[in-house]
Amino acid sequence: MTTPTRADAEALDRDDQLSHVRHAFDLPEGIIYLDGNSLGPPPKTALARIANVANQEWRNGLIKSWNDAGWIDLAKKCGGKIAPLIGVDPDEVIIADSVSVNIFKLAAALSQRHDAAIAYERGEFPTDGYILQGLSALTGVDLIEVTPDDDIFPQKKTVLIKSAVHYKTAEIANIAELETEAKEHGSSIIWDLSHATGVIDLALKKNGASYAVGCGYKFLNGGPGAPAFIYAAKDKASTLHQPLCGWMGHAAPFDFAGDYKPASGVERFACGTPPILSLSALDAALDLFTDLEMQAVHAKAMALGDFFLRCTEDFGLPTVSPGIGSVRGGHVCLSHDNGYAIMQALIARNIIGDFRAPDLMRFGFAPLYLRFTDIWGGANQLKDILRTEEWKRPEFSVRGAVT
Amino acid sequence: MTTPTRADAEALDRDDQLSHVRHAFDLPEGIIYLDGNSLGPPPKTALARIANVANQEWRNGLIKSWNDAGWIDLAKKCGGKIAPLIGVDPDEVIIADSVSVNIFKLAAALSQRHDAAIAYERGEFPTDGYILQGLSALTGVDLIEVTPDDDIFPQKKTVLIKSAVHYKTAEIANIAELETEAKEHGSSIIWDLSHATGVIDLALKKNGASYAVGCGYKFLNGGPGAPAFIYAAKDKASTLHQPLCGWMGHAAPFDFAGDYKPASGVERFACGTPPILSLSALDAALDLFTDLEMQAVHAKAMALGDFFLRCTEDFGLPTVSPGIGSVRGGHVCLSHDNGYAIMQALIARNIIGDFRAPDLMRFGFAPLYLRFTDIWGGANQLKDILRTEEWKRPEFSVRGAVT
Repeated sequence: MTTPTRADAEALDRDDQLSHVRHAFDLPEGIIYLDGNSLGPPPKTALARIANVANQEWRNGLIKSWNDAGWIDLAKKCGGKIAPLIGVDPDEVIIADSVSVNIFKLAAALSQRHDAAIAYERGEFPTDGYILQGLSALTGVDLIEVTPDDDIFPQKKTVLIKSAVHYKTAEIANIAELETEAKEHGSSIIWDLSHATGVIDLALKKNGASYAVGCGYKFLNGGPGAPAFIYAAKDKASTLHQPLCGWMGHAAPFDFAGDYKPASGVERFACGTPPILSLSALDAALDLFTDLEMQAVHAKAMALGDFFLRCTEDFGLPTVSPGIGSVRGGHVCLSHDNGYAIMQALIARNIIGDFRAPDLMRFGFAPLYLRFTDIWGGANQLKDILRTEEWKRPEFSVRGAVT
Repeated sequence: MTTPTRADAEALDRDDQLSHVRHAFDLPEGIIYLDGNSLGPPPKTALARIANVANQEWRNGLIKSWNDAGWIDLAKKCGGKIAPLIGVDPDEVIIADSVSVNIFKLAAALSQRHDAAIAYERGEFPTDGYILQGLSALTGVDLIEVTPDDDIFPQKKTVLIKSAVHYKTAEIANIAELETEAKEHGSSIIWDLSHATGVIDLALKKNGASYAVGCGYKFLNGGPGAPAFIYAAKDKASTLHQPLCGWMGHAAPFDFAGDYKPASGVERFACGTPPILSLSALDAALDLFTDLEMQAVHAKAMALGDFFLRCTEDFGLPTVSPGIGSVRGGHVCLSHDNGYAIMQALIARNIIGDFRAPDLMRFGFAPLYLRFTDIWGGANQLKDILRTEEWKRPEFSVRGAVT
């Protein structure tokens, strides 16, 4: 296969049915942003909404905005906007807390209800395992670390946490197959959708999935540390008792009753008062998805990834991600022993990706604003950095707090 | 005692040593805001900071702002600004999650470490009890509901959650005395500072307190649903293992190691990625306190409360709060069977307080921006509403979601 030219990229951009969505963003000049899988850029509507929440709703409306501006229902309303992206009903999703906290809620409730062990796969996003370690240390529930080659559901009932899209490889799990297997074993799966929501077509209900968590700041473009979401199928949610039962998950929070009475459905997974500024930014950002077909979004993400792999095919950088033409999520990892320094050299040239230890350069292909010419440009800068060995400059080896 | 006149209020304003702080706020015209104990108004610096975080740090800096704009250390830095307000060292406080979630972390860690029961007082802020109910249902730890007349520390070791300032009465707990008693019983106290921080002089360390949580959106003016803080004394924090051990509380979060290794000190109480927009607003708002003496802040809050009680003394509205000249927090509750409708009538006249079921009208006396003339004006409007029985109009009985 011949290496693509700039003209090839331009032709692909002309045929791109999603090219108009880029105008919803106000991207900084001169940057090729291949890290929207880690922190999405702000949609213009999100920036406008933040200004309005601060200067009108908070400053002028003050406490009255809890009713008048709808803050009290915002976590529910915003959850309803995520529902179609993951293929469930609007009243089955709520925004609350962080991914880590939401994993704890679901894992605690499910393991207690079903007297089940909890399990995670080696190599999953670390916080998923940490949280299960914390839960096991607190309650004594059996904790199992499995490898993808093991029987993923041991003999006894198990609550497994599993990523829909792996944070390094971008491999997509076979949700339907694993759910079928889980049900045969009397087990449950909590899907971590952090790297999946907003980039792949998640038909959770159709595929038999009942529980999920996910974050708002990656492909959903909800802003740094945007609050997370939690999904619990309505036929299951009201049977679960999650331990972080704060007042916002109460059936009648403003009765100030002495005893906790959980709200029905997924609303019982709310806990404390949500951070309204951050939640509002996420709510506004989600409106971008209203008219988009998730199949088209995923198809473009894969096309961008394929194009990047074709552009970089002869660079001598092995990928741990599914290759050209294979099904994968919205990012690709290339490996190199000096990946950290190479990524810093790219960033110095305004090509922004990220690095995952020990040796992975991770490039995200957010389909809402990236062009094929961006991918072509990024790949060519990478080629030049490898050719000139510019990455050997000492400043590119200095580690920042966030890598 | 004669009822104060407007001239009395004006004289008090002239003598007010904190009157200049009001200029740091951009309060809406025509409103007398007596609800800063529930949601503080925005300091101008907080509004400016929000705009900068959104339009510069997020939009232009993108993922690089985790390092370049200091997002990664913001929860710690911001906690350090709360430390002097509560009388502890800067490295003993961190911002994380909500009050509810933070209570869970501390109560779980302490009850497990000391094999202790958990307890709360009847009439405490409900979420404090709910969370302990959830913890007990999860781990089986003994849960005790005490009344203020009971022996507050039963025979066995107990972890008690207790408000420093009661959310209805504004009574201030005797921290030093209760801590001494707790230590005699091998017990611990988690102080809920939600209604105390930023309005009373909390000398926690001097008074022997080792653990506390508190919220950022009341007297700290951090914005709606601002994230909460958690304090754990440094001689104790590193001995505690809290179960919500997400990646931000890891000793080396970006190593992506498989096993959780807690950070030292209070940093191990961090969990997921913090909501940066909301956290930044709180961080900016806290700068208002830099040059203020908390003793002077508390003295003004009490003087405003006393003045309000003097203005309303002959209205026939009993108070459940400590009376004129008594030590109390930054708010006062007056009771009336039709308190809800009366408060709605006040709000319709732009005098904003809140209502706590079944019959309490709650008025907050935030000392950073309120004037004695505001208190006088609010009290006179209340008098007029009672005289005209305007509160009987049907629209004032319609309940909103948030009361």
